[in-house]
Amino acid sequence: MATKPSIPKGTRDFLPSEMARRNYIFDTIKSVYSLYGFQQIETPAMENLSTLMGKYGEEGDKLLFKILNSGDYLGSLTDEELLSKNSVKLTSKLSEKGLRYDLTVPFARFVVQYRDQIKFPFRRFQIQPVWRADRPQKGRYREFYQCDADIVGSDSLLNELELVQIIDEVFARFGMRVAIKLNNRKILAGIAETVGAEDKIVDITVAIDKLDKIGIDNVNAELLEKGLSPDAVAKLQPILLMQGSNTDKINELSNILKGSEIGMKGVSEMQTLFSMIDKAGIRCTVDADLTLARGLNYYTGTIIEVKALDFEIGSITGGGRYDNLTGVFGVDGLSGVGISFGADRIYDVLNGLNLYPESLACQTKVIFLNLGEKEVEFVLPIVKRLRQAGVATELYADAAKFKKQIGYAGDRQIPFVAIVGESELQNGVIALKDMTTGTQTNLTPEELIEKFTIK
Amino acid sequence: MATKPSIPKGTRDFLPSEMARRNYIFDTIKSVYSLYGFQQIETPAMENLSTLMGKYGEEGDKLLFKILNSGDYLGSLTDEELLSKNSVKLTSKLSEKGLRYDLTVPFARFVVQYRDQIKFPFRRFQIQPVWRADRPQKGRYREFYQCDADIVGSDSLLNELELVQIIDEVFARFGMRVAIKLNNRKILAGIAETVGAEDKIVDITVAIDKLDKIGIDNVNAELLEKGLSPDAVAKLQPILLMQGSNTDKINELSNILKGSEIGMKGVSEMQTLFSMIDKAGIRCTVDADLTLARGLNYYTGTIIEVKALDFEIGSITGGGRYDNLTGVFGVDGLSGVGISFGADRIYDVLNGLNLYPESLACQTKVIFLNLGEKEVEFVLPIVKRLRQAGVATELYADAAKFKKQIGYAGDRQIPFVAIVGESELQNGVIALKDMTTGTQTNLTPEELIEKFTIK
Repeated sequence: MATKPSIPKGTRDFLPSEMARRNYIFDTIKSVYSLYGFQQIETPAMENLSTLMGKYGEEGDKLLFKILNSGDYLGSLTDEELLSKNSVKLTSKLSEKGLRYDLTVPFARFVVQYRDQIKFPFRRFQIQPVWRADRPQKGRYREFYQCDADIVGSDSLLNELELVQIIDEVFARFGMRVAIKLNNRKILAGIAETVGAEDKIVDITVAIDKLDKIGIDNVNAELLEKGLSPDAVAKLQPILLMQGSNTDKINELSNILKGSEIGMKGVSEMQTLFSMIDKAGIRCTVDADLTLARGLNYYTGTIIEVKALDFEIGSITGGGRYDNLTGVFGVDGLSGVGISFGADRIYDVLNGLNLYPESLACQTKVIFLNLGEKEVEFVLPIVKRLRQAGVATELYADAAKFKKQIGYAGDRQIPFVAIVGESELQNGVIALKDMTTGTQTNLTPEELIEKFTIK
Repeated sequence: MATKPSIPKGTRDFLPSEMARRNYIFDTIKSVYSLYGFQQIETPAMENLSTLMGKYGEEGDKLLFKILNSGDYLGSLTDEELLSKNSVKLTSKLSEKGLRYDLTVPFARFVVQYRDQIKFPFRRFQIQPVWRADRPQKGRYREFYQCDADIVGSDSLLNELELVQIIDEVFARFGMRVAIKLNNRKILAGIAETVGAEDKIVDITVAIDKLDKIGIDNVNAELLEKGLSPDAVAKLQPILLMQGSNTDKINELSNILKGSEIGMKGVSEMQTLFSMIDKAGIRCTVDADLTLARGLNYYTGTIIEVKALDFEIGSITGGGRYDNLTGVFGVDGLSGVGISFGADRIYDVLNGLNLYPESLACQTKVIFLNLGEKEVEFVLPIVKRLRQAGVATELYADAAKFKKQIGYAGDRQIPFVAIVGESELQNGVIALKDMTTGTQTNLTPEELIEKFTIK
């Protein structure tokens, strides 16, 4: 026998039971996005490398999956180039396409390409796989789905409010308790400005981000090491140690940052957003959290992150506002704000907390056994009527042993088995076995159809 | 400004209006598959090249999109290998993964890999994109979706019946008139045997397939050219010229093929299938058609093809039975039968015949204009209640000019616009504009919610 076939490391097959759960996640997110008027788009798996390269940093460029050019792709290389064996440099000669690395860059490309057809503000969502040549590890895959929603072409904080409402609604539908964390890049910039270390904003935010993990002393040491003055570090302390309610934090920040224009702009944005959120009656906790520093190289305003409250796992949803999504493709001035649900992590949380609806176990409601040709002839019109009524129905195709057929129904977790053998055929009835209780009842065809169609 | 970005040739972006239509097609097919008890699976976009190579012929190997290995992929090559510039030979050293070319080979790999977890007969469906480095042309893309359903592990012709019923149901839901064409590979083998040209079965079926296009004389000439004896070509004439009802054809075939065991097996299979189809009450035409020769290198029994009756286009669905799907991966004896809906062609037909439901135009039912802060505060709880009731609702995020906002609603084809300006706010009402009729009515919040939620 040949070696057992396998799939590339970091990729996954999804069996029917997993698909049912994944579809539940995607369908839930999709229906909430639609409820808020977001419109779906899709982009190709392959993009030109010129679209992708340089958008994710040097490390990102390496993690792009590149498609080997078709045909005689080596023919165009000189002997000298080949003998250099410079894989990095020659990639652009061997490959001109790469697999989508995220949904944001293809979306930016899309917005620029179709800007004459798009009605702004453009509310789009997109649920598609992305590919990264990362080292595979637990919970990190080389192929995974992203579920993004963005609004492009509107500065209004009402967009941020709606994204928070969407997050609230999605996790309410999942029955998951979560906390939404909010920050604002302008506040971070204001902090850097106020402590007199504007050029150190990245170091400061990275340090703030580590506060929970390494503690205040190590954070301070790291900041000094990064070149912040002792004075700047001292000025940072009230911010690092800030506690209390969202209102407390905002009040304190507006006090600390009053000398920084950008800082005060951030405080005002955050204040407005919290005030809208309060009025909107969000079910989950929403916290101001200055330790959020995700996506710092592109977010320019609000930063959003979501944590599961009853399960240990990283951020399960994130997003924020970026002021120049499409600048890199030559169109300036389009502000956007978006979120992305982490479907794979949500899958893990729902599994871990056993939160999937029971109805996902099996779509098929009833299976008819096959006990011979005449019996099947009797059964076929009934099967047809059930399907016409929208009842997912199976007919076992082979006249196999009774035990094998009933075993199949059990393994598949089909809730009802319909049996027509010789005696049922004579009496014109169907013996319906309830697989949950084990009871069996004789029903006429009419009674059977009624049972499955009348709620 | 940078050059306008673009996507690789042969690939497509899908705008919201196209996505709505595509989702309608996929959702329809998916719900019929589920109604018949098929279970969904997904496989990774990338497969090991060892899984894909050699499965689609030499031409297919060339059309596989190959992924360049990560890291220093040139380092392992000798100078000699590099200087040979033998692109075909070196591919296996530069690439070990390729993009899925169809859903059948990954499915065969899947069945072998999970055969201990799968319950046979296994009824699976799979709707995913595939990639082929074909020369792009009208209606042929380098990335396109396949929508496959297969039953593996059952010889029963009841499976063929159900696939025919599924095709009938799917196209009934689309409102498309189609004809289902059926053939049987065993009949083709019987014909080759009967005319004494068993080794020429491929040539004979290719010739039969061309009958419509090039006519009987050219077919005969071609057969002689391919090395069939004049006697064999003479014996073929009654088959090539066979006409009449399905029963007529089957009777004539059972007469002509009575000396061929395999031929008679095929006739008997076709007879049984037609008899079941007659009893099942299929809505569309079903024809026996010996000119079907698709997938001849792997089909072993029934062959299925579907033609649109009111639109000029190639086959829009096809399938058949194959007796050894998984043999190539070392597991013999698993018979399968399946179909594949051609979503892209179905898309073209539905477009051409204008058969899409009107409701696809816009998901959003009502948009609230933004005429100022106080007005938005009044409106927000109403928007929330509509969404809670499942009504897809938008709120224009920016307090832009009235004309711009109403223009957006019109462009998006949103059927209702809810307007709250100063006077509406004072009276506690919403002016609801019906964008189809142009009429505008004042409603209280209660009346508005009732209008959208009571059917």
